[in-house]
Amino acid sequence: MYFSRRNLDFLLHEVFQAADLTKYDYFNAHDKETFSMAIDSMTKVADNLMYPHFKDIDRNQPELKDGKVTVPASIKAYIKAMGDAGLIGTGFAFEFGGQQLPETVGSCLGFIAMAANNGMMYTGLTSGAAGLIASFGNDALKQKYVEKMLNGTWQGTMALTEPQAGSSLSDITTTAEPMPDGTYRLKGQKVFISAGDHDACDNIIHLMLGRIKGAPLGTKGISLFVVPKYRVADDGTFADNDVTSTGIYHKLGQRGVPAMHLTSGERDDCHGWIVGEPNKGLSYMFQMMNEARIGVGMTGAAVASAAYYASLQYAKERPQSRRLNEKNHLGSPQTTIINHPDVKRMLLMQKAVVEGSLSLLLECSRLSDLVRVTEGEEKEHNELLLEILTPVAKTYPTEAGMLAVSNGLQVLGGYGFTEDFPLEQLYRDIRITPIYEGTTGIQSQDLLGRKVTMKGGKAAQLLFHEVNKTIDEANTFDDLKPYTQLLQKELARLQDVTAHLMQFAMKGDIERFLMDATLYMEMFGLVTLSWQWLKQAEVAKRTLVTQNVEADDLTFYESKLHTMKYFFHYELPKTRGLAVRLKDTEVLTIVSEKEYVI
Amino acid sequence: MYFSRRNLDFLLHEVFQAADLTKYDYFNAHDKETFSMAIDSMTKVADNLMYPHFKDIDRNQPELKDGKVTVPASIKAYIKAMGDAGLIGTGFAFEFGGQQLPETVGSCLGFIAMAANNGMMYTGLTSGAAGLIASFGNDALKQKYVEKMLNGTWQGTMALTEPQAGSSLSDITTTAEPMPDGTYRLKGQKVFISAGDHDACDNIIHLMLGRIKGAPLGTKGISLFVVPKYRVADDGTFADNDVTSTGIYHKLGQRGVPAMHLTSGERDDCHGWIVGEPNKGLSYMFQMMNEARIGVGMTGAAVASAAYYASLQYAKERPQSRRLNEKNHLGSPQTTIINHPDVKRMLLMQKAVVEGSLSLLLECSRLSDLVRVTEGEEKEHNELLLEILTPVAKTYPTEAGMLAVSNGLQVLGGYGFTEDFPLEQLYRDIRITPIYEGTTGIQSQDLLGRKVTMKGGKAAQLLFHEVNKTIDEANTFDDLKPYTQLLQKELARLQDVTAHLMQFAMKGDIERFLMDATLYMEMFGLVTLSWQWLKQAEVAKRTLVTQNVEADDLTFYESKLHTMKYFFHYELPKTRGLAVRLKDTEVLTIVSEKEYVI
Repeated sequence: MYFSRRNLDFLLHEVFQAADLTKYDYFNAHDKETFSMAIDSMTKVADNLMYPHFKDIDRNQPELKDGKVTVPASIKAYIKAMGDAGLIGTGFAFEFGGQQLPETVGSCLGFIAMAANNGMMYTGLTSGAAGLIASFGNDALKQKYVEKMLNGTWQGTMALTEPQAGSSLSDITTTAEPMPDGTYRLKGQKVFISAGDHDACDNIIHLMLGRIKGAPLGTKGISLFVVPKYRVADDGTFADNDVTSTGIYHKLGQRGVPAMHLTSGERDDCHGWIVGEPNKGLSYMFQMMNEARIGVGMTGAAVASAAYYASLQYAKERPQSRRLNEKNHLGSPQTTIINHPDVKRMLLMQKAVVEGSLSLLLECSRLSDLVRVTEGEEKEHNELLLEILTPVAKTYPTEAGMLAVSNGLQVLGGYGFTEDFPLEQLYRDIRITPIYEGTTGIQSQDLLGRKVTMKGGKAAQLLFHEVNKTIDEANTFDDLKPYTQLLQKELARLQDVTAHLMQFAMKGDIERFLMDATLYMEMFGLVTLSWQWLKQAEVAKRTLVTQNVEADDLTFYESKLHTMKYFFHYELPKTRGLAVRLKDTEVLTIVSEKEYVI
Repeated sequence: MYFSRRNLDFLLHEVFQAADLTKYDYFNAHDKETFSMAIDSMTKVADNLMYPHFKDIDRNQPELKDGKVTVPASIKAYIKAMGDAGLIGTGFAFEFGGQQLPETVGSCLGFIAMAANNGMMYTGLTSGAAGLIASFGNDALKQKYVEKMLNGTWQGTMALTEPQAGSSLSDITTTAEPMPDGTYRLKGQKVFISAGDHDACDNIIHLMLGRIKGAPLGTKGISLFVVPKYRVADDGTFADNDVTSTGIYHKLGQRGVPAMHLTSGERDDCHGWIVGEPNKGLSYMFQMMNEARIGVGMTGAAVASAAYYASLQYAKERPQSRRLNEKNHLGSPQTTIINHPDVKRMLLMQKAVVEGSLSLLLECSRLSDLVRVTEGEEKEHNELLLEILTPVAKTYPTEAGMLAVSNGLQVLGGYGFTEDFPLEQLYRDIRITPIYEGTTGIQSQDLLGRKVTMKGGKAAQLLFHEVNKTIDEANTFDDLKPYTQLLQKELARLQDVTAHLMQFAMKGDIERFLMDATLYMEMFGLVTLSWQWLKQAEVAKRTLVTQNVEADDLTFYESKLHTMKYFFHYELPKTRGLAVRLKDTEVLTIVSEKEYVI
């Protein structure tokens, strides 16, 4: 078991009422039933073609030989199955052969796939790349590429990063020379391009950032191009497009997917087709970036889910020692380790992180769906909420996810360190998630430096309003009042810290303002997750009070309340120390004339 | 660079005044000069034979083939060099051919070795095993084994863990049948035996725990045996001793050292020689355990040191983006990432963990030396301080060390995730340290359940007295007063939490008492490390005030003060949240009739 369907259904239907989305035209071909069918279909592929290959695609990592990258046959089989089942294009409009499913459901599918085998991320990349073409490309590009990408014949990639420009996209130097026929000739280096070359698909379609010669400096001179590995003539014949695999990275984790170093235009014959208008590439990319960031957050939550269930199973089966109040009962049978409070604490922590993160991520996906279908002020509110929550939804599940997986490994003790159990691999795999699609440091600057301040702080106000709505609803139940009070207090503490930091922004001292943005992110994340937990607890409590809940489900709902309590009692108090530091006046990390780190 | 000699000298000579130990008879053959010679000698081996093989012994992990384990030639070369240089027996008395060096110095050597290549831990294991024979074995055992172990000809191991008894040694079932000639026949399974079989040494000498038939249940029926791989006749000929390598674990990290599954007595021909008296095996083992735990803590600090210097170098060389107050200077050169506050913070965190941990570990080693050479009440005080600090010195450097290495990896961004840099391996390697020699959970129960309560709380009182002595000394300097006040406040907070928890111990509810022992450990560790940082800062400040310090050293001492401030401003405040939880009345992790983790 690597995820809980019961919990997914709880979040999708009981907390977020996904079926409500079908009242909008865009989604009205769907209902609860079609949502479930999509989830069943994904689960089938995950169970049969992904989960069984979790270890072997890690152990047989792709190599670059004679300019070619070969991947195991299981990769081809999974991509084909995803394409055949329509699971690459679930979110695409019917006109593209997509299923026009809400992101709220699409995110659940991503969660299942990544929990089963996060090294099989090929199709997620294709979906993202095809989405850029579908949203911003001209008809010719759409017709040529989208269908073959969505059916899994061709792989898509995001080719952004360059050796000298990692987190700083404004410094990319790949050049694009305009040709009389309207195409471009690309020349440059790209690094860390996931699925950037392999033999499980017939062609690789890179969505590549570059600068048209003479374009302005910085981010305003970046354009987006479709750069295929093979140019495809109208009759379907392939011609090599001068994109060379010059290196492959061997990595700590996610070893099943090759990360490529690509060189374009060595023979001056790398053709690119511009997507949308010149110099607007980064803005297109950023429209996809929110979705990609939520996707990475989802990978964090999913890997942590796989780790949680693996360690939970071990803890239920492994006998070791006696309970602390029975230490002297020599010769009595050992208890299973789930009965040791320290182990139980580590399990509850994992559950709280996994289910809290998933809840926040589905909240974001739902907002993303609402942005699509609403208008005017309502749309703006949804947009602002999505903007402020996205960096948190990228960061909390990945950062807390790492600690959760580490707790999972610790539950197994020495066995957790061995390759006999999946924990060591999950521990390696999840480590990339706080790095790609913008590191935690970048997300934190985005949260505090852009999102909290945007439109005079309106996004933050809207969010706090949402939190207060949940508090009001939860206040219906006396049992939840201690927790609504705690959250109210923490919300006030967060607002106080925010106001303190805003002083520096007002003065224009951005470096001081953002100095400890990562700690601010941590505090913001704890409050946001508490909100999500209170939201889940309110639904659980209401169900227990108003419905006739049966045995298994009784445990499910009571466990929800229990895990909410865990979060409030063990995780939320961490805000105390963070607030002390964030309001502290001592500056220790801004460059001074003396260099103290030696 | 993987460690700082300047920092090691500072701690050894300026903070802990190691040369003072030479006034005691046992150490009077030594002086500051011989200490330095030992460190130089270790550094030479580390630089030439260990550090260069950091990656390759990980990439070529030992395999078990046809019952044999083969390791790379570099392992044999390093073991031989360690033996030839007398570096396996530095702490052993002259009578054993040792160097009779203080542990304070020996720990520094271990730090250097593990920072260079923590997969080369073979000789540390030999030293520990030989130490058990030297301390508790009879003359025949001493004569037969110690010399050949200390010169590197034979490997030593600690064979404790069994498949069904990991953290619970009282449940081991390996049997030992007494023979008329005074030897025993051993039969059983041992797992995770590091260096339990390999071809770099001529023989493997297991120090194995087992039960003599008819022995009492639990820990009071465990005896300690010497069980060689090959029995050695008086003429030096070898006979197979029926210890079979039945499995080898493939691990997340420390891949250079084989972790073996051993089966003894399959042919009823596994001979063992008892060490000391029957049924006292665990008490002997525990006398070595303190040292072993400090050794594991040292490995944590050492791996974190290697990660710190690797990420520091990268941060000084890697240009990326512009400073936050200069974001709009398009086209201006990128700054090196050390100038970004978030990166600087991650580097300072690493430095604070590495140097603070090393300081605490040397404090423990010094206490261990003093226990050896002092008498009466003085000896008892040293023993009690060592007892209470040991679980902290095992846990803080390994737990905080993991986070420090993770920060190191994060500094490198995507490159940190690749095998092109050492960070990914260090990240894997350090993960075992909070597990072996007693997990963090076990250490935490030891701290709160045994050490804090022992002799009516005397160990804790003595420790708090030591902290107050440091506070008094630091109060000489106005600049340090804000920090002495902070530490005093935190000490009071810790005492308050301790008193709260003691109520449950008084009532005999041990499960409730120890429920959150791991969080208590974290809080205790933060206060203890703050004490070590204040101690270092006091020496640095005094030196700056009283001596004419030159350029490079000025930076060194000022950096000490700066890093102390980092610790007090960023790390210490975490006690706030921990105290809130530890005084909280909600019980969430003790088994109730309802099982909430599903």
